[in-house]
Amino acid sequence: MSRQIITITTDFGDTHSYLAQMKGVILSINPEATIIDLTHRIPPQDVVHVAQSLPELVRYFPADTIHIVVVDPGVGSDRKIVYTRFGSQQFVSPDNGCLTGLAHREEPSTIVELADGQYWLPDVSATFHGRDIMAPVAARLSLGLEPTALGPRRDRLVRIKLPEARILPGKVEGEIVSIDSFGNLVTNITAEALADAPRDESVTIRCDDHETLGIYTTYSDQPEMTLIALFGSSGNLEIAIVNDSAKIMLGVRIGEKVVVRW
Amino acid sequence: MSRQIITITTDFGDTHSYLAQMKGVILSINPEATIIDLTHRIPPQDVVHVAQSLPELVRYFPADTIHIVVVDPGVGSDRKIVYTRFGSQQFVSPDNGCLTGLAHREEPSTIVELADGQYWLPDVSATFHGRDIMAPVAARLSLGLEPTALGPRRDRLVRIKLPEARILPGKVEGEIVSIDSFGNLVTNITAEALADAPRDESVTIRCDDHETLGIYTTYSDQPEMTLIALFGSSGNLEIAIVNDSAKIMLGVRIGEKVVVRW
Amino acid sequence: MSRQIITITTDFGDTHSYLAQMKGVILSINPEATIIDLTHRIPPQDVVHVAQSLPELVRYFPADTIHIVVVDPGVGSDRKIVYTRFGSQQFVSPDNGCLTGLAHREEPSTIVELADGQYWLPDVSATFHGRDIMAPVAARLSLGLEPTALGPRRDRLVRIKLPEARILPGKVEGEIVSIDSFGNLVTNITAEALADAPRDESVTIRCDDHETLGIYTTYSDQPEMTLIALFGSSGNLEIAIVNDSAKIMLGVRIGEKVVVRW
Repeated sequence: MSRQIITITTDFGDTHSYLAQMKGVILSINPEATIIDLTHRIPPQDVVHVAQSLPELVRYFPADTIHIVVVDPGVGSDRKIVYTRFGSQQFVSPDNGCLTGLAHREEPSTIVELADGQYWLPDVSATFHGRDIMAPVAARLSLGLEPTALGPRRDRLVRIKLPEARILPGKVEGEIVSIDSFGNLVTNITAEALADAPRDESVTIRCDDHETLGIYTTYSDQPEMTLIALFGSSGNLEIAIVNDSAKIMLGVRIGEKVVVRW
Repeated sequence: MSRQIITITTDFGDTHSYLAQMKGVILSINPEATIIDLTHRIPPQDVVHVAQSLPELVRYFPADTIHIVVVDPGVGSDRKIVYTRFGSQQFVSPDNGCLTGLAHREEPSTIVELADGQYWLPDVSATFHGRDIMAPVAARLSLGLEPTALGPRRDRLVRIKLPEARILPGKVEGEIVSIDSFGNLVTNITAEALADAPRDESVTIRCDDHETLGIYTTYSDQPEMTLIALFGSSGNLEIAIVNDSAKIMLGVRIGEKVVVRW
Repeated sequence: MSRQIITITTDFGDTHSYLAQMKGVILSINPEATIIDLTHRIPPQDVVHVAQSLPELVRYFPADTIHIVVVDPGVGSDRKIVYTRFGSQQFVSPDNGCLTGLAHREEPSTIVELADGQYWLPDVSATFHGRDIMAPVAARLSLGLEPTALGPRRDRLVRIKLPEARILPGKVEGEIVSIDSFGNLVTNITAEALADAPRDESVTIRCDDHETLGIYTTYSDQPEMTLIALFGSSGNLEIAIVNDSAKIMLGVRIGEKVVVRW
């Protein structure tokens, strides 16, 4: 139990003292914890962004991993902090909608409001609950503390609206939700949303004023510098330029509409 | 003992091979060490910056953590490398003033000059003592080597001048010493420096040509987009814009004067 | 065996979900693995860059460390994935030339083509073999799997052309191959290439239209702001400005020619 994994996801960017303090708190309580940074590049206070990112970030972690999520614009207000279990994965986070993307895929099996201050740091600041409440609670959970000891059970999480693809007859409308380091454009259009689309060149994929035909399996199915659509490693539709950057070549941004027709 | 924690703080930025080499050296000597990166974004050779940053970076680490600090503009000169213990925390660093911020808070209990080369790498380069001396010494300390074996005891550390707040009757003059990822402006004015200031709106906080009244507890004490002063998670006075970036809105930089009057 | 070290080197940049997924896969198979990030700032798909960087990145790691290298422009093509042992270090990487820099120094003792899918994730995507093949294979090797179980042995690796210094009578011509965070210019001219050069000021080192005389031992051998040549911590010739940035002062880039004459 003591070698349990704790991950940290934040919007701290280059403010490394905040992250150092959270790690110090965790290791003071459980020196054997394995701490993994998922990302600290969530745009500041962007709850929609972290809600969309979490399913991909946590997807492959082993059972019982504890994920701390600190994107917390409401710190010091009456927003709650919660422990939530989705399947085999555990989360300690503000209850501000940051788990909405996970909740779209699966109902949480347990939600507990963090209320019992004996598991927190003795002095809780008004501005940094990631360090003073979430880090010590995660560390104690990693040592075997029962989540139900943390406070009262809750029935539901706060949810926020996330951009979702619209499925229409012969057409799916989505958008670019992330762009990777290679300039590949990742959409919110899942393979399921395209279950009715034929698997040949009668399908057109349009983004801004660029168009490509057919959905391929891998980049090397087409020659270099070709615009190509394929289901990427996330399972969602991606638009790419073979061995180049679609982001730069197409000059598009996150939020750009993508339309698939057949 | 063998799972002991070693942290690394440097000015290496994106020069990842230097950091990889230090980690390789540490793990070659103690494969069970837990290595934690505090920050590698100290501006190159900026001893003042690291001296100001260290107290916040190391503040929450467990007893006996070993902190390696490699901001070393004098490498190859006659500056010394030292082992220093402050309270429960241990440091391996150049003796160039980088520990001054810690020394302002607490006298070191032990200072030892690194002199016995048997604990270093066999070949010591002239330009990278972080890898060749500090990393192997920290790794051996993590395995139980007595600090006094490293070389002769010293009485005092080199100290440098750090910008400090001036406490005057009815007034404290300080400056911005860091800006976090949310654009909050962190000053060098401690709560103690303001012990005599009233806790109401008769206090004015001025930065550049911007002014706010009163010192609050948390961001949500004021409406969105309001300029607010509060004691942040470091315990020092911060100037913030609620749910926005004071850095961008005020257009100020590190070093900008901040004056509190009452 | 189970606390074995696995390092990761990629061109993922800020696409943190890819890295998080690889770590999740590794820890799902071996929760006791120690994972070390070497760098994720290899320029996208730049096999020459990673081939030049790897010798310095892995140089100090303990025996039997497993290094995963994911710079993989050919993913989904017929390029192979290989296990390779160089001396005491093990690699799991595409066979695309990324190990050429290591192969220049030492012949690999073992090369095995990854062919047996039982050691991979059950569903292998067409676009992310770092996660689906390399990460699970590295994790299983860290648990004691014999490399020869992975597939058939191979005799040779794919090699690519790397820029190398030319050794001529009284002259060596090289180039800048990296620039560190301090602005020091690291060349591909080794100390061996300069074995015949005198160790005094009759040696001239020229870069762009800047020239300096003599090769020194450390930065502090010359006054501040002096242009200086020395053998850096990598063992290669470096050009530096004492306590300032040669990169900025000289305005030069990676690839710039450097000529040493005597």
